[in-house]
This record gives sequence, C-alpha cells and structure tokens, in this order.
Amino acid sequence: MDVFFRPRGCAVVGASREPRKPGHQVLRNMQAVGYPGNLYPVNPRETAIAGLGCYPSLTALPEPVDLVVLCVPAAAVPGVLEDLAARRRERGDVGGLITTPGGYAETGTEEGRARQADLERFCRDLGILHLGPNCIGVIDNRNRVDTTFLLGTAHQPGGVSFLSQSGALGAWLLQSWSSRPRPVGFNRFVSLGNMVGVDLVEALAYLGEDPATTAIGMYLEGYPDARRLLTTAAGVAARKPVVVLKVGVSDAGRTAAASHTGALAGSDELYDAAFRQCGVLRARTMEELMDTLHACDTLPEPPGNRVFLMTHAGGPGVYATDALASLPELEFAQVLPSTRDRLRAILPPFSSVCRPEGHLDMTASGTVEQHAAALETLLADPGVDAVVLLDLPTLFLSAEELAAGLLEAYRRSLAASGRPKPFLPCLMAGKWVVEGRRLLEEGGIPTFETPDRAGRALANLVRYRALREAARRAAALGSGAGAPAAAGRRVLTELEAYPRLEAWGIAVARWRAARDAAEAARAAQEIGFPVALKLVSPDLPHKSDAGAVALDLDGPEEVARAWERAEAAVRAHHPELDLRGGLVQEMVRGREMIVGGVRDPQFGPVVMVGMGGVLTEHFRDVSFRLAPVDHRQAGEMIGELEALPVLQGARGRPPADLDALAEVVVAVSRYLSTAPGLVELDLNPVMVGERGRGCRAVDALMVVSG
Amino acid sequence: MDVFFRPRGCAVVGASREPRKPGHQVLRNMQAVGYPGNLYPVNPRETAIAGLGCYPSLTALPEPVDLVVLCVPAAAVPGVLEDLAARRRERGDVGGLITTPGGYAETGTEEGRARQADLERFCRDLGILHLGPNCIGVIDNRNRVDTTFLLGTAHQPGGVSFLSQSGALGAWLLQSWSSRPRPVGFNRFVSLGNMVGVDLVEALAYLGEDPATTAIGMYLEGYPDARRLLTTAAGVAARKPVVVLKVGVSDAGRTAAASHTGALAGSDELYDAAFRQCGVLRARTMEELMDTLHACDTLPEPPGNRVFLMTHAGGPGVYATDALASLPELEFAQVLPSTRDRLRAILPPFSSVCRPEGHLDMTASGTVEQHAAALETLLADPGVDAVVLLDLPTLFLSAEELAAGLLEAYRRSLAASGRPKPFLPCLMAGKWVVEGRRLLEEGGIPTFETPDRAGRALANLVRYRALREAARRAAALGSGAGAPAAAGRRVLTELEAYPRLEAWGIAVARWRAARDAAEAARAAQEIGFPVALKLVSPDLPHKSDAGAVALDLDGPEEVARAWERAEAAVRAHHPELDLRGGLVQEMVRGREMIVGGVRDPQFGPVVMVGMGGVLTEHFRDVSFRLAPVDHRQAGEMIGELEALPVLQGARGRPPADLDALAEVVVAVSRYLSTAPGLVELDLNPVMVGERGRGCRAVDALMVVSG
Repeated sequence: MDVFFRPRGCAVVGASREPRKPGHQVLRNMQAVGYPGNLYPVNPRETAIAGLGCYPSLTALPEPVDLVVLCVPAAAVPGVLEDLAARRRERGDVGGLITTPGGYAETGTEEGRARQADLERFCRDLGILHLGPNCIGVIDNRNRVDTTFLLGTAHQPGGVSFLSQSGALGAWLLQSWSSRPRPVGFNRFVSLGNMVGVDLVEALAYLGEDPATTAIGMYLEGYPDARRLLTTAAGVAARKPVVVLKVGVSDAGRTAAASHTGALAGSDELYDAAFRQCGVLRARTMEELMDTLHACDTLPEPPGNRVFLMTHAGGPGVYATDALASLPELEFAQVLPSTRDRLRAILPPFSSVCRPEGHLDMTASGTVEQHAAALETLLADPGVDAVVLLDLPTLFLSAEELAAGLLEAYRRSLAASGRPKPFLPCLMAGKWVVEGRRLLEEGGIPTFETPDRAGRALANLVRYRALREAARRAAALGSGAGAPAAAGRRVLTELEAYPRLEAWGIAVARWRAARDAAEAARAAQEIGFPVALKLVSPDLPHKSDAGAVALDLDGPEEVARAWERAEAAVRAHHPELDLRGGLVQEMVRGREMIVGGVRDPQFGPVVMVGMGGVLTEHFRDVSFRLAPVDHRQAGEMIGELEALPVLQGARGRPPADLDALAEVVVAVSRYLSTAPGLVELDLNPVMVGERGRGCRAVDALMVVSG
Repeated sequence: MDVFFRPRGCAVVGASREPRKPGHQVLRNMQAVGYPGNLYPVNPRETAIAGLGCYPSLTALPEPVDLVVLCVPAAAVPGVLEDLAARRRERGDVGGLITTPGGYAETGTEEGRARQADLERFCRDLGILHLGPNCIGVIDNRNRVDTTFLLGTAHQPGGVSFLSQSGALGAWLLQSWSSRPRPVGFNRFVSLGNMVGVDLVEALAYLGEDPATTAIGMYLEGYPDARRLLTTAAGVAARKPVVVLKVGVSDAGRTAAASHTGALAGSDELYDAAFRQCGVLRARTMEELMDTLHACDTLPEPPGNRVFLMTHAGGPGVYATDALASLPELEFAQVLPSTRDRLRAILPPFSSVCRPEGHLDMTASGTVEQHAAALETLLADPGVDAVVLLDLPTLFLSAEELAAGLLEAYRRSLAASGRPKPFLPCLMAGKWVVEGRRLLEEGGIPTFETPDRAGRALANLVRYRALREAARRAAALGSGAGAPAAAGRRVLTELEAYPRLEAWGIAVARWRAARDAAEAARAAQEIGFPVALKLVSPDLPHKSDAGAVALDLDGPEEVARAWERAEAAVRAHHPELDLRGGLVQEMVRGREMIVGGVRDPQFGPVVMVGMGGVLTEHFRDVSFRLAPVDHRQAGEMIGELEALPVLQGARGRPPADLDALAEVVVAVSRYLSTAPGLVELDLNPVMVGERGRGCRAVDALMVVSG
C-alpha cells in the first residue's frame, strides 16, 4: 500500500477549475499539505488549473506517475481506464488508483454492481492496487499526501492513523480535530469506500506495521469475515492501541434462534465480546473515539490506575469526583503522609486536601504557583499514576498564566523523575480558555472539555494495559470451523443430546430414558429419589411451558402419576405433538448457570456462559468469547459476570465450583470448534455445586445441521 | 426576593480600582448588563471607580438603595454592618444584602460558624433579606442586574433561570453558554452560597412564580429536608420544567442497614426516585443539563415521541440512528405513504428513504433546496413529532447556505400548519459551522454539537410531558412522619413482626409459633404439608446463612428431625445465641419479590418494591417512592422494574398477580407513613401467585425505634 502514501508523481483525472468540484479541491489539498512530487491535473478541455499545467490524458504525462486519483463520474470511467491501461503498457507505472465518486455497488442497482465488477477486474488484470470507489482517499501528514476533497483539514503531523468505512464520518473527525485550539495531529487517514482492492483487514495490517503510527482508530460498520478482522486486530493491538467506533448497535439483530444463546448472540454482542477478547478498545461515542486516540498518541502510559483530582472550584470538583468514580477502570489515589503534609503546607488555608482521598480543592484563592507546586508534588508521589486537573478561569487566575505555570511544573517534574505520568487538564469555559488550551497542547499536553471526557480517555489508557495482554493471547485464535449450512437445521431431543455431551466429557445429571409411566418409575428407583421427569418431543424445545416437566418426585408412585399427568397436559395443549417417550433425571441442587454456544456466520464458533434459568434472556448477565477458549479464558468469562460476587459466596454462603464450570465452558468451546455440524447449544441450567462438588447440566438444547 | 432583581439603587461595599478584585468587577458587570438604577461604589479611600462617584459609607448615599453587595473580607464585615444598621435606621431602605466572600461556616472552623451566626442574627433582627455568604450573587438579564464578578457573561435575555449551590459551577455554565456561536439566553441566575436567609426551597418557589422564567435549572449538592425540596419542586414542575444536576452520586452512602431495603436506599437512589415521582428532570452531565435547559426554553413541546432523522452523510447517519435508538423515550416515526412518495420525488437518486423507518439519507449530493423541501414535507406529516437533522459542510453544501434554507423552510412550515414541532439540527464540524449555527440560533432554532446530545435533549422534552403529570399528583405528598430517633433501634423477630403486618392487612403465609420439635410437628399438621421451619432469634436477621431454616418438609417426623438438625447447626455456629423457639410456615410458591420501606432522615418514609430473593441487592432491580403511594403509583413502581416482562408472563407462563402485589406496596407505604416507630421493613420474599391468586409474605425483617 506504499503507493498511496509515497507516490512519485500523482495525477488527478477529472481535474476542474470549478472550486466546488472534487477535481479542483483534491489539487488544492495536495498543494496545502505540500505534496513533494509532481502533481498533474488531467483534463482535455483545460490548459492550467490551480497554477499547474493541465494534461489531456494519462499517457501524455512526462514523468513517472505512481498514483492516479479518479474524480470523474462513474459513466466516464471506462474511457479513463483505457487511457490508464495504455499508460501502464507504455510506461509500466501507476501502481495505485483511487476512485473517489460513487455510483457503484453502494447504489444497490444492477448497473452499479456491474460497474464495480468491471473496475475490480480491470485492476486485478493490470496489477493495479485500487482504493474505493465511493471514498475520499487518503491523507499522510508525514509524507505529505492528501487526495481528499475535504475542506480545511489542518495537516498537523501526529501518530494516530484512522481507517474509515464512511467518508463523511472521517470528515466529521478531521474537521473536529482541525477546529481545536491546536489541531490534533495524525499520521495517516484512509477512507475505504466499497473496498474494491484495498480492504479493511489489509489496511489495518498495513498500518499495524507502520512505525510512524502509534495508535489506530477505526470507524466500523461491519465486515463479512468478522473473525478474520478481529484476529488481525489482535495482532495489531498487541503492539499499539486499536480504538474502534462500531455502529449498527441498534440493528434488529439475528432472526429467530432456538436457544437462549442464539437469542443473546446478536451481532453487536459478539463484536463487543470479540473486541474485548482481541484487545480492541471500543469507543461508544465520537467524543470518546477522538479523545482516546488523542490521549493514546500524546499521553504516556499510566503506571497504574490511581488517579488524583485537583481543582480550585468546589462544585465542578464534586461533579468530577462523580464522573471519575463512575469509571470502574479507575480508583482514587492514596498519597503518602509526606505528600499530604506538603500539600497542606503549600496550599491556601481552608483548602480541602485528600478529603475524600485522591482529591484536593485549593479553593478559588489558589494561585498559579500553588497549582504548579501541587502538580509537582502529586506527580512525585509513587501512589499517584495520573493527575486530572479542573480549571475555570476567574478574575484571579487567567487560563493562559495557569497553562504556562502547569507546563513548566510538568516539565520540571519529568526532568526530576524521568518517569512520565499522564496529566489531563480540563479547561472548561469555552472561548475563555482557548489560548490556555493552545499553550498546553503545543507543549504536548492534551486538554479536555469536561472531566467526564478526560476520565473516559484515561480509563481507556488504563484498559489498554490489560487489553494488550489479551491481544497477545488472542492472536493465536484460528479461523474457526466454517459457518453452518443455511438449511437443514435439526433440534435434537435431550435423549439424543445427552450421549453426545457425555462423549465430549461434559457432565450431565444422571438420567435414564423411559417409554411409559412404569418404565419411568423403575428408572427413578435406579437413579434414587428425588427425581425429575421430562416428556420428550422434537417439537417442544421449551418443555416447561407445556407442562411436560415434573420436578422433585419422591417415590415410584409419584413418578408414575406425574408421567400420566404430564402426558395428559401435553396432549391437551398440543394434540399433534410427536411424543418420543421421556426421561427421568436425578434432581441436582446448585446455582443455575447457562453454558452455550452458537456457530455464527461472521464470527464462527462462539461460546457463552452466564446466569441460567428462566431469567437468562431477561437479565442478560452473560459473557461471550470466540471459541475455543482455554481454562484461563473461561475463568475470565466467568469473572465478567455481574453475579460473580454471588458465585464467589456472598453473604456467607459457600463459594460455587467455578473451576468445574470453567471446564464445561472449555469443553463446549472445543466441541463447537471441532464439530462443524453443531450449530447451537444451550446447557441451561448447569447446576453448579459448592467448590469441589463439580457441576452438572440438567437440561440441553442442541441444534445440528441436518 | 424582588429586592435582588429589581432594586432601586445598588451599593457595592468594598468597591475597588483594582481590576482583579471582585469589588471592581461587580461594578463592571452592573455596567455591562446596563443596570438602570443608581450604582454606588462604597470605599472610604477612593473618590471615583469605573467612572462612578465613590462614597465613604452607606449612610452617605444620597438616593434610596434597595440592595447592598458586600465585597469586603469577612473580618471587615462587622464595621460594614454597623454602617448598614445606621442606614436602615435613618432611611429605612436596603431590603436586600448579598455577601460575596467566603470565610464563614464553609471553612468548617468555629470562627467561621460564629461569624455566620452573627450575620444571620443581624439580618433577621433588621428584617433584611440576605443571600450568601460565599456566593457570586444574582443576574437578571431582563431587569438588568448582575452582581457577580464573573468574566465575560453574555447578557442574552432568555427564559431559563438557574439556581446553583456552587458559584464555580454556575460560572462553568455561564461561560460555556456565553461561548456558543450565539450565546444562550437566560432570565435569572442565583448563586446560593451558604444559604443564610434565602434558601434553595424559597428561591425555587420564587422562580416557579416568575412569569418570565420558562424553565428552571438547578445544581444540587444536597438539602437537609429533601422531602420539602422535592414536594416544592413538584409544585413548580407541574407548571414548568425543572432540570436538576444532582452530584454526590459516588458518596459512600448510608452506613450499615439491617434490611435489603435499607442497604439499597442510598441517598442518591432516593433522590433519583423522588425526582421521578415529583416530575423533576434529572440531567446526568453538564452537557445534558445545558442542552436540556436550552431546548426547554427554545423548542416547542413535541406532540409525541416519534422522531425522524434526516441526513446527507451515511456514516454519521448510522451513528445517529444508534444514538437515537438507545433512548427509550423516543421511537422512529413512520410516515404516510404520500410523504414517502414525495420524499422520493424531491430527493436525489440513490437516496435512502425510510430504510430503516424514520430515517432518510439524501447522500452527499443533496442540495439546500432538497434539504428545505424534505424538512417541510416531514414537518407536515402527522406521524412525525420532531425532526433531527445532521449536517457536515462539504464542498457542495456550505453550512451558512444550508442554515438559511432550513430556517426559511421551518418558518414556511410553521406558517402553513400553525402547529410548531421541534426541529433539532446538529452541525458537527467545529469551526466550519459556527456561522451556520449562529444563523439558526438567531432564528430561534437551537443547534447541537452531536446527534447524541440532540437526542438526549429531545428525549428530555418528551419525558417532561409525562413528568408534568407526575408532578401534579406528587404535589399532594405531605411532609411525612418525622425521622426516627437516632438511638434505640430494635430488630423484631418474625414472631413479633407477623402479627403487626397482619394488623395492617398485609398477607403473610400461614404460620404457627413453636417452642420445640414436638410443637413444631403438631403445628405443621395444622397448617398442612409441605411446610418450612425457622428457628427464631433476635440476633439472627439472616437465618438461612446460619442453618436455621429448613424448607419443603413433608411430614411430622421430617419436621421434628429438621428442628433438631437446625437447632444443632445454629448452636454449633453461634453458641451464644438467644434462641426464642421457632415457627412453622406453609410453603408458598410464586415469583419472589421484595416489598420494603425505610424512614429516611432526609426523605421521611419511602417504600420500595423489587425482585426478591437472595439476589435482591445484587441485581438492584427495585423501585422507590416517597410514601404514601396509592394503587396507581404502586402500579407505576412495579412498571419500572426491568423484570416486568417476566412478571407479565413471558414465554407463555401465566402472568403474576401484580394487583395484589401493588396492594402490599400500598399497605406498607401507609404503615410507614402512619407509624413513626417503624424504621425499616423488608418483606422478602413476597411470593406472588398467578393472577387472581394473591400474594403472601414468607419472611419479614422489621426494625422499630426502641
């Protein structure tokens, strides 16, 4: 992909004298960024555009040209491609082509799709690397290339690179960054468009290898092979932060699934789980995306998660305390007694120091010098990993003077310790702090509009420390067994499912098949009382709704009576039902959990664990992973459940056997990733006993490909 | 309180020539706002300040003075008060006093508290209404008063009034509003400081009566009589929106409570429930507070909650769809077939119209005229209650031209229909859209930085429609039975609690007391099997943790054996325990719910309902109200539970008897508001049967004042 970022010579086909045309603005942007190579407008009807000599065709260009930017409408493209083919035959250059306009497959028309196929074939046949169509191209602030037609991009170099599946969203990001007191720097920007040629995964891997890229941002709408995207992202995230804004959260999601697991595995839930597993930071809003990328590029990695909040404004300080306390990634720092004493000595009387812990309010009488001294003192404390500061300019304290003082203090502190820590000043008074923010940002310290945004960015830096480790482990994930055939799904009965589960080493509560009430009574005696009884039919996945289940049966007569009652109830509600007899099963006590899995068309096999029972889909307290997982990963999944404290033994109850539960998760994940015929599986509930007592599935719903 | 907002004559004591002193800036702000009365600097060492003749004392002022602003340090105040007393004796004016500086009770010192008491006594004795100390005073943009020393407030008149318990937070709000492309207008601003004299509730009631105030914002840290604050707010919210930013969410909360209800009733949970009950909009962030107030003042009330999203930018459109879909208050509009046809006719080819419903993307080729025509078409559709628009300026579409076109279209639409609907344009490209935003806002249409923020503001407008109704009903809430005595709490055993509950008409599962195993066996036979058995001790509120409970006992021998086992278990773990015998109780099946209440020191009696059982505190699926509640309000509480669908009969299970559950909530709320000795009450679980079958408490924990 170097051809897009370091082209010797670039031609703009469809160049225009009209300022409101992309074919004009691309030339202007190339000039604005300071493109160092030859820049050629191509338009047979003009002689000069934007001060550059204009050429009638690509074949007419005198010097080597590596990159062509197409700004002509789709209908005019075939003529250009002929010219391009001729150029390539004659000169052998033009390794890269960017097609800016739309009119291709994104229109949803037959004509558009055919055009796109032609373009794809042309580039493949001629060995040209293509970007687009329907994209705004690339920017590289280091090598000085800008093939977009955006207005007003500030070409501030920096370390962030950004991949966008939407040109407009990229424009939003770049225009916002360019509007800040000091424009946010970035390295490369790639608008992917319809992904003919360069696709998302390739571009991500390429930027992953780019030494000048310190962090990668991505706007993601979707990708057909999500598993490949995520495993590639894991490889990149092991080395540098990958921050993704994934949209489509509100999609209707998957259609009818037989299992709880299938119903819970909407595409967004799977993306969310896979991001976590693969070490990708997910941003929920544009602000979070922008702030996190900026912070990743400009702030040092925090040594830990202990944050100190300093302020001279009471109310905003309480507000910020709430904002920081709401972030589970962060905790408030506890400073040394010597730090506390020193703060008390240097700050104004009536300052509130470390009440509560990790917080100081020096009151509105705090001077620049007092701010600076407090910052140095805090950064020197080994218990402080990061400092967030709030500033509202007052009569007594201008934002510019404070910014200058803080900058010096931060530099002194860095020189003294050599160990940089993140410092996140929030300057919160709109236009009254523009100059103060510019000063700090020119000094290399990012500033924030609100403490909420600063806290979120810091929390993401902290989170990345753990995610990088996850990314390293996830890089080993394979591509997974293929997707299931669309047709021919078959729901197995419990009688069919249990032997399969047992063959995979998954513990099932003791059970016996029975064909009638008498057999059931005998089976119950073999198992020992109390028992459960279930009638079985392939058409009855939710047995308890239909009266087909009886629990806690305490003797052979009770079992026989229960069989008769259940059969009558089922026949009354579903006279057409194909009843295949039933089974008797030991009653097992324990915490009700669910372990399940589905084979997803985009993600391949995924495994789930969560709180089981009838409220599973209601409380949605579940955790997903791409399968297979090992014992440690299964333990991490269980660790993500909100109900973890209950499982670990809240209120003096004995802890549950979470090791045994993790083993079931591992076994289910292996089963799914090894047996491509297994489409959906619910073990719900798995009854988890006290620690050391193991766990056993007491119900199973299994869907296989027919 | 008129004296602060319409003073004939205002004196600033402690006036200064030094621009960085409050005593100077107050004069500048009074001049900037255009104060129409006489303005007197008072300072014995100066002759003129800010172009105004300076006076040595209050008694020396020639004309009537209604308001005095004190800008002298606390230590100099006694001398000023003597002067003030003399003035009041001689001239009878000066009805209002604002004390700006701190140094009073907020310092936490004995000296500060004594000073504050002196100030309070002085004002009370002389009949002077006092605001502060430790505050920044008031602003009134209509009557042109500004006693603050803030920098750069734009005195743009508008309908919002704001009450702040923090001067700095008020400054944040006003400086942010003043920094927008067009400053946000407001009517009155009051900084409350230490609330000597004017307190929060009085100020709120006063602004509630102010006809020029259309919406009230409040920054709230806390108020000792929260119940009084909230019932006053209900009276105001029945007429105009009250939007509150309440901080202190992260407070450690209440100390040890015996009951689940007590443990869940942290002060923030009670504020949250009371806001909802009393019709107060709670904003979670500064942005939400500012956007909601601005929207309340400038947007018409939406006729319903159906929103249409129009955009010319694909990616940002998908992003905005997620943002709007995440707001439960809103739904996407379904337009008439004729609207859809008209949109298709006027918009560019390949526009995506109503795919998905309530959404159109006219692609980047949409012109100003097409935007305008689409807006008019949508506003005319009876199925559309509000329109959100996204704009990113492009080469082809400038923000200013678009703004002008939209403004005209909106006005035409209003003239044609006469029924205004909210229109919320989001202009999202930083400095490239400043002029466009200014144009729209000068035309009366608020603009938004992101679709998230627009959606949130619109959702709050929609929410207010329902809240206003709640506010009307809540205005009838009394002050509640008083707070409990701090000492002498006593936990009742179930044996003591059940008769009291039954006397209040609360259904309890059938029970019999027993002193030993033999009595228990006999009692069980009277009740009928199966039964539960519980040993009772005043020191054992969580019986099941100690082995003191046995369930599902199925015959007299089993009961007797269970008694022996339970007694041995309890004695083994707690040899010191005062065992008072036990009870036998019928086993009741049903959904496990909790109904409870506490008497809170700030809120008085409050009632709670939620999902019961051992996971109550874990899932926190509960709803609170100030007690008493009626049947309808109890039903609304149940309606707020996340588990509602399960209770209503998800998955074909029969619905639960929610009417009976509501009756228990009503009875508990009456019990609490009538019996001041009742401090905490948990009925957990209340077993709720199928509809028509009623419900019964099977466990009770009751704390009374000793």
